[in-house]
Amino acid sequence: MRNLQGRLDLCSINTATLGHREPLSRTIDRIARAGFGGIAPWRREVDEADVVQIARQIKALDLTVTGYCRSTYLPATTSAEFAANVEANRAALRDAATLGARCFVMVVGGLPEGSRDLTSARNQVTEGIAMLLETARDCGVPLALEPLHPVYAADRAVLNTIAQALEICERVDNDRSGMIGVAVDVYHCWWDPALTASIEAAGRAERLLAYHVCDWLRETRDVLLDRGMMGDGVIDLPAVRQTIERAGYDGLIEVEIFSAQDWWRRDPEEVLAICAERLQSVC
Amino acid sequence: MRNLQGRLDLCSINTATLGHREPLSRTIDRIARAGFGGIAPWRREVDEADVVQIARQIKALDLTVTGYCRSTYLPATTSAEFAANVEANRAALRDAATLGARCFVMVVGGLPEGSRDLTSARNQVTEGIAMLLETARDCGVPLALEPLHPVYAADRAVLNTIAQALEICERVDNDRSGMIGVAVDVYHCWWDPALTASIEAAGRAERLLAYHVCDWLRETRDVLLDRGMMGDGVIDLPAVRQTIERAGYDGLIEVEIFSAQDWWRRDPEEVLAICAERLQSVC
Repeated sequence: MRNLQGRLDLCSINTATLGHREPLSRTIDRIARAGFGGIAPWRREVDEADVVQIARQIKALDLTVTGYCRSTYLPATTSAEFAANVEANRAALRDAATLGARCFVMVVGGLPEGSRDLTSARNQVTEGIAMLLETARDCGVPLALEPLHPVYAADRAVLNTIAQALEICERVDNDRSGMIGVAVDVYHCWWDPALTASIEAAGRAERLLAYHVCDWLRETRDVLLDRGMMGDGVIDLPAVRQTIERAGYDGLIEVEIFSAQDWWRRDPEEVLAICAERLQSVC
Repeated sequence: MRNLQGRLDLCSINTATLGHREPLSRTIDRIARAGFGGIAPWRREVDEADVVQIARQIKALDLTVTGYCRSTYLPATTSAEFAANVEANRAALRDAATLGARCFVMVVGGLPEGSRDLTSARNQVTEGIAMLLETARDCGVPLALEPLHPVYAADRAVLNTIAQALEICERVDNDRSGMIGVAVDVYHCWWDPALTASIEAAGRAERLLAYHVCDWLRETRDVLLDRGMMGDGVIDLPAVRQTIERAGYDGLIEVEIFSAQDWWRRDPEEVLAICAERLQSVC
């Protein structure tokens, strides 16, 4: 396992960690100044600015874009809506290419409003991903399927385990083009009895595209916006990193913390300093 | 699939559905009077009363005890604590036998306070279950392992999928004694991509011991105490029941709803009437 001491160049900050309180250009500067090697910006921030200018700034600061967050949800009630969702993702993929992103993070979406048909939603996801794979190839930006915790199955993602993500990858890309894989986020998959086996399988298929860390608080007050700082929760972070690095992952370690009541209320400089310290001590 | 119209004798009420607001004997009367064929009481209610008298009342009203809720959590920090947890479950199993329960519902417990060792907690669970199996045989009450939604992995149950439960069953009972199996609760496993396959596997192994229904609300406000009434959420209840009955389940359909802000505030008679109506119309 890589030693992260003094290696913030191996670490990345997902801008959600700072709560999207400042313009992206300012956030980029903060992250670079704190010594991190990477950044993962969000579309809404980029859309509020100028993507070319943002790309130029990131490049000038020598930051790796570890991922571009995130896809428009795919499952839809009508085929027109579904087509529009795919199209919105195509546009985002082109921006991801402009940014030089290592991957486009796909949070696939939950059940369409009013639907109870999980199978159909999952089929739409596979279909949409297959359609986007071509664009990903054209843009040179791989699709990183991010399984979300099962608690979000209704409203955010019907993709809930790494095994399920790998099954989609094999179905749409059995020649292993390198243009589709998984984003492993400890928050979403730490509980999975198949975690080690699934990460190993993803490694063998060369599909490990991103690795996100934070922590699961034992007393979670809000499953969406109460993620913990690494070290404050129950996840055995070194064990998971050892597993993913042994399986071949050699990309950056990205911090992504949604925390409306705690970290998003703190000074961004303090948050970055604590991220840096925890990355080097407990991850 | 069985037709539940006019067949409340095939339906059971878990007393948690009424919010534990009244003495158990009153709850038993209400459930019998409403026409349900079964009841699943909780230990704390039974412990507040006299188990022999409760058993007599339930028998006189011809109610099936579809499950006795629930086990003392197994994982512990010290071996003395672990042994005490096992012993507490042995005592509960004897009460389950007195009640004539069809099964003893095992919610296995989360990580011990301060622990990040999921593997060790899971090993303790398997070990504890193996120890309890003997008592279950002596008492004639099967252990129903209930996988809980992964959102409870830290604090309530490190057993999170039916597949994982079946693996434990095979490990501790490969001669298939009939004294251990799974309790399938739609709230906990509706999201599982392996749901159908796992239920079928459980059926083939004759390990389907209980079936619990409620609903998953799209906008869940509290993952512990905001379960929905059947029909109010996103779970395709007829599809799940068809799967489990095709797999050989012929026991009762048990309603278990934790709902601090809604159903637990309503009149118990109203709750039972709506349960009856929904069981016959949307389950």
